[in-house]
Amino acid sequence: MIYLDNAATTCPNARAGLRAASFLTENFYNPSARYHGGVCVARETDAARNELLGFVADPEKFDLIFTSCGTESDNQAVFSCAKRGNAVTDAGEHAAIRSAFSELKNRGVEPRIAPVNSDGSVNTEALLHLVDEKTSFVSVMHVNNETGAVNDIRTLARLVKAKNPRAVFHSDGVQAYGRIPVRLTEEIDLYSVSAHKIGALKGTGALMKRKKFPLSPFLYGGGQEGNLRSGTENTYGIAYFRYAAEEKFASLSADGARLSGYREMLWELLEKPLFARLSPENGSPYILTVSAVGLRGEVLQRKLWDAGLAIGTGSACNSKKPHSPVLEACGWDGKTLDGALRASFSPETTEEEIVRAAELMNAAVREMKEVTG
Amino acid sequence: MIYLDNAATTCPNARAGLRAASFLTENFYNPSARYHGGVCVARETDAARNELLGFVADPEKFDLIFTSCGTESDNQAVFSCAKRGNAVTDAGEHAAIRSAFSELKNRGVEPRIAPVNSDGSVNTEALLHLVDEKTSFVSVMHVNNETGAVNDIRTLARLVKAKNPRAVFHSDGVQAYGRIPVRLTEEIDLYSVSAHKIGALKGTGALMKRKKFPLSPFLYGGGQEGNLRSGTENTYGIAYFRYAAEEKFASLSADGARLSGYREMLWELLEKPLFARLSPENGSPYILTVSAVGLRGEVLQRKLWDAGLAIGTGSACNSKKPHSPVLEACGWDGKTLDGALRASFSPETTEEEIVRAAELMNAAVREMKEVTG
Repeated sequence: MIYLDNAATTCPNARAGLRAASFLTENFYNPSARYHGGVCVARETDAARNELLGFVADPEKFDLIFTSCGTESDNQAVFSCAKRGNAVTDAGEHAAIRSAFSELKNRGVEPRIAPVNSDGSVNTEALLHLVDEKTSFVSVMHVNNETGAVNDIRTLARLVKAKNPRAVFHSDGVQAYGRIPVRLTEEIDLYSVSAHKIGALKGTGALMKRKKFPLSPFLYGGGQEGNLRSGTENTYGIAYFRYAAEEKFASLSADGARLSGYREMLWELLEKPLFARLSPENGSPYILTVSAVGLRGEVLQRKLWDAGLAIGTGSACNSKKPHSPVLEACGWDGKTLDGALRASFSPETTEEEIVRAAELMNAAVREMKEVTG
Repeated sequence: MIYLDNAATTCPNARAGLRAASFLTENFYNPSARYHGGVCVARETDAARNELLGFVADPEKFDLIFTSCGTESDNQAVFSCAKRGNAVTDAGEHAAIRSAFSELKNRGVEPRIAPVNSDGSVNTEALLHLVDEKTSFVSVMHVNNETGAVNDIRTLARLVKAKNPRAVFHSDGVQAYGRIPVRLTEEIDLYSVSAHKIGALKGTGALMKRKKFPLSPFLYGGGQEGNLRSGTENTYGIAYFRYAAEEKFASLSADGARLSGYREMLWELLEKPLFARLSPENGSPYILTVSAVGLRGEVLQRKLWDAGLAIGTGSACNSKKPHSPVLEACGWDGKTLDGALRASFSPETTEEEIVRAAELMNAAVREMKEVTG
């Protein structure tokens, strides 16, 4: 099986798993326990925290709290910060932000959604236009999970703060962390990341926050994570995250350069005009979204699975809607939306897999065109 | 190391880990993906759901949603249901309920806390006295995590509903599930459980709910778990939970009978009057809490660790307070609270360990008494 659905989830990194394995055996203790075994586990959890944070931010200026997933991180950011006035985001966001923004209406906060450009990146001017003195919260994702478009969150944060210094700026970094260079500036108050997108486990995420940023607790209980996220820490998942991230960050530039090449190679090998390109050329090296215009992406997807290729059709997290609302917001017509396919890579992806994937995609589309006339 | 802190967390069951391992390799797919690999993982997750539910409830009458921990399950129950009037609980609850109830004040709901009996069980009469026509939510834990006292939640739920049929009844079953016989009746609307207390992983929990019970979503996003808990499912943790629970439930009665014997054996072997007993005789077989009256539990705990025994001092989840608020609510004096030690067992606990633990505890207390005069 050629696996090109790494933006949905990645295969856990077995080396990271081996390194984390002691948290299932001799280091299984509860990190809140005050005897030596518990204290050691707590220390290791803090070491993981500092390392995961240090890859993208200055640990003197930022903190990191562990959560159960990117969705929880996003939700905690939204519901902690968007408590009055209005909250601004864009139509390219993941469902974790979009759905949380919809819920804001029920909580007396006005959600404002800026349009996106055709590649899925936020329309900066329109976003800034929505920010006013009543804006309590702004959220713009770093890398669009459906197109790979990269938003310049440092500049956006600066512009938002220039317009309203009290507005909180959050970014969903789930598709960026460990794949593209990230360095948080102090205008970025909050940043969400997820473990299972980079070779670690489902059920682990984190929310980075500017030090002293007054985040509200999301889970109430034993006071773990500086009282911001109660519940026994997922020590194995946290260690797994740390070791998987170490590998990702060690080869981030080299992987990015190679995968950019593969992304363009895949595009070159796809037959035109069977396929239209929806992803930008300057986007994440990890994502190429195309459309077999006029065909049904999910039918192609199942056909390709049978042929030995796993590929996405849009956000796996939102697979019950007929069309991706994000690609719709990019302005594509119904036939293009129907045929959307997302190929997403990992550092394990090989050139041979890219060549073979293109062959399979071309063959599947040609075959379906023949059948449907 | 003799490990008698199983109520804080248990050592993951390696057999369950082996059985779940395919979710880290060939079954690593995102269960929301619509190709065959994703569909299979989703099917396995549902099989786990039904099995975990079926151990304690009729799957025709109850549902189960997976969460990230017992604390999240408890928080979702409280914040979904306690939205108006008053909410009633008792002073024996875990911090996940106690802290959530404190937060209710900020949300315009009056928290009402019933006293507990000296063994930590709820004072039924006092609890019912607090329930009135404005009560939206009642939460009473099943097994007290600090004393092992068992509340008769079926009777309590019936009595609460008799007084106010619209009040939601929730129980925190974190220390009960997989250890004492549980059968949910339809007066119990919600029931929280946790995986890492029974040989599975930290980072996995579940909330059981009566079918058609109108729970509110806790995380908003991709619509997983029937739209009640968005976020990619922790498929490995869920499978691990399933297989660990299978073993627990297969030997639940035999384990309970044996461990009741060990609990009493430990108590018999502890020298009197060095130790006072805080746990009831009819409580969970898995917990014996005693006090080395007048000594400091946490000093004893560290001393015992050095001697080869890991033992608790109260709830590990709430280890920053000087005294356990739960044991305080039981009415014990300061010297008894100071010396509290909780021994908690697992089916792997052996008779030899019990005998040795008693020796170590007696020796440690005698030694400390000599030092302190």
